[in-house]
Amino acid sequence: MIARLCIIGVGLIGGSLARALKAAGAVGEVVGYGRHAEQLQLARELGVIDRGETDIAVALKDADVVVMAVPVGAMEGVLRAMAPHLSAESIVTDVGSTKGSVVAAAQRAFGVVPPRFVPGHPIAGTEQSGVEASFAELYHKRRVILTPLAHTDAAAVATVRALWLAAGAEVVEMDVQHHDEVLAATSHLPHVLAYTLVDTLARMEEHTEIFRYAAGGFRDFTRIASSDPRMWHDICLANRDAILKVMDRYAADLAAVRSAIERGDGAALLGTFGRAKQARDEFKQ
Amino acid sequence: MIARLCIIGVGLIGGSLARALKAAGAVGEVVGYGRHAEQLQLARELGVIDRGETDIAVALKDADVVVMAVPVGAMEGVLRAMAPHLSAESIVTDVGSTKGSVVAAAQRAFGVVPPRFVPGHPIAGTEQSGVEASFAELYHKRRVILTPLAHTDAAAVATVRALWLAAGAEVVEMDVQHHDEVLAATSHLPHVLAYTLVDTLARMEEHTEIFRYAAGGFRDFTRIASSDPRMWHDICLANRDAILKVMDRYAADLAAVRSAIERGDGAALLGTFGRAKQARDEFKQ
Repeated sequence: MIARLCIIGVGLIGGSLARALKAAGAVGEVVGYGRHAEQLQLARELGVIDRGETDIAVALKDADVVVMAVPVGAMEGVLRAMAPHLSAESIVTDVGSTKGSVVAAAQRAFGVVPPRFVPGHPIAGTEQSGVEASFAELYHKRRVILTPLAHTDAAAVATVRALWLAAGAEVVEMDVQHHDEVLAATSHLPHVLAYTLVDTLARMEEHTEIFRYAAGGFRDFTRIASSDPRMWHDICLANRDAILKVMDRYAADLAAVRSAIERGDGAALLGTFGRAKQARDEFKQ
Repeated sequence: MIARLCIIGVGLIGGSLARALKAAGAVGEVVGYGRHAEQLQLARELGVIDRGETDIAVALKDADVVVMAVPVGAMEGVLRAMAPHLSAESIVTDVGSTKGSVVAAAQRAFGVVPPRFVPGHPIAGTEQSGVEASFAELYHKRRVILTPLAHTDAAAVATVRALWLAAGAEVVEMDVQHHDEVLAATSHLPHVLAYTLVDTLARMEEHTEIFRYAAGGFRDFTRIASSDPRMWHDICLANRDAILKVMDRYAADLAAVRSAIERGDGAALLGTFGRAKQARDEFKQ
């Protein structure tokens, strides 16, 4: 039971966590911090938070746990704003899609990464955003990755783990760099590929006709290109090295497939397509 | 009303067309041709065809319309087998995903593309295959593209158009090359990209872990990598030039995005991602 929880940024992610913890009876008071009073008012009317604050010092006061639920690009600003006011007893966690960048930002903001800061990343979300879209079941059976550092306080990790378990999630731990590499491969690269494809086609002369003849496969393949451009811009800048690494690997493999098509090498195509189908079919289960 | 319809290859595509035409009362006898008697027997038991033939001369006899519903890579063999037995009065169409290759195969098989051959492509399908998976509604509100040549018989085009309309589809016409370019962009390239991504990740050391942390976006993005590898191998070889053309365009755009990530050019990333989101959101409607 967390007596006082402070959510920095009450949108889809932060709002859904507050709802889930309230529904589970795992939290006392939920304080929401944001820059816009009317958004906090809406969150209060929706029953997502109990109290809204636009002054971060007031928002952080006596918070047992602070959850930073802002876009990756806004993390450093939030950490710097928090630094002068954060009690050493408050446990802090975040929900950023990249972890190396958030840890580096915490180091810059605090001089040293606070031992009670537990970097985290719930692998959940929808194409929507805003507190209006939040719902208590968002994290149900979803994975949350925590990336504590060597000097992170074990009790703080246990508290953050318990928080996500109460929200219905499964919690795993891995190191920061490994998290960023795995997510670059399964999430960041696919978004870059989908955005680029839709933009390539949209800039072709006959694009209205092209989209007209697109079928269900294209619809699924490009669904993630409807995601928030600014959020993905943040992620690409924040996880640059890991994304470039897997992108280069992919570009080399794509060039090999191109060459196989050009020279009519059916065996090479069957090899790639067959291995992919097998891996994808296994992933389904 | 087609008195006698011959379906060459009674699988998902051919079987669903037979079912739809029967349901619409638009066909008299449906004759199925295939190499495997037991498959034809199954199609007959399922009520998809009225008669199964493994001898193509018998199957084609007195057929008003012949539909070639075999994979793209098998079209030339079927056309060569049909050539000595096809009546000049029979109207022929196909369902191949590429049209230039099928027209070229018809030319090789017949010397000149028969005036009553109407190349066609229903943009419909599922990840499944086989006559067991066929259903009458597969073409309902789906687009069918016909690509008649300059010398194609207008009455034959009208008959094939009426056949697809009876199956519930919308019918459009375009020229062969344009079809192949549009489909390379919206269908063939996305399949190549998805197959390549899943294969890239599957060949990474930590691939079991990578797939473990993949979320819904990845699932949608890679769904088409579960498609039949041989069918897509056929398509890549059959539509080589159009695929290479759009692939090169895509690779150049991807290299530009890579460069923007590397140099931290947020404006360029926002430009690409923003244009893509807008195009994808419009496509939804």
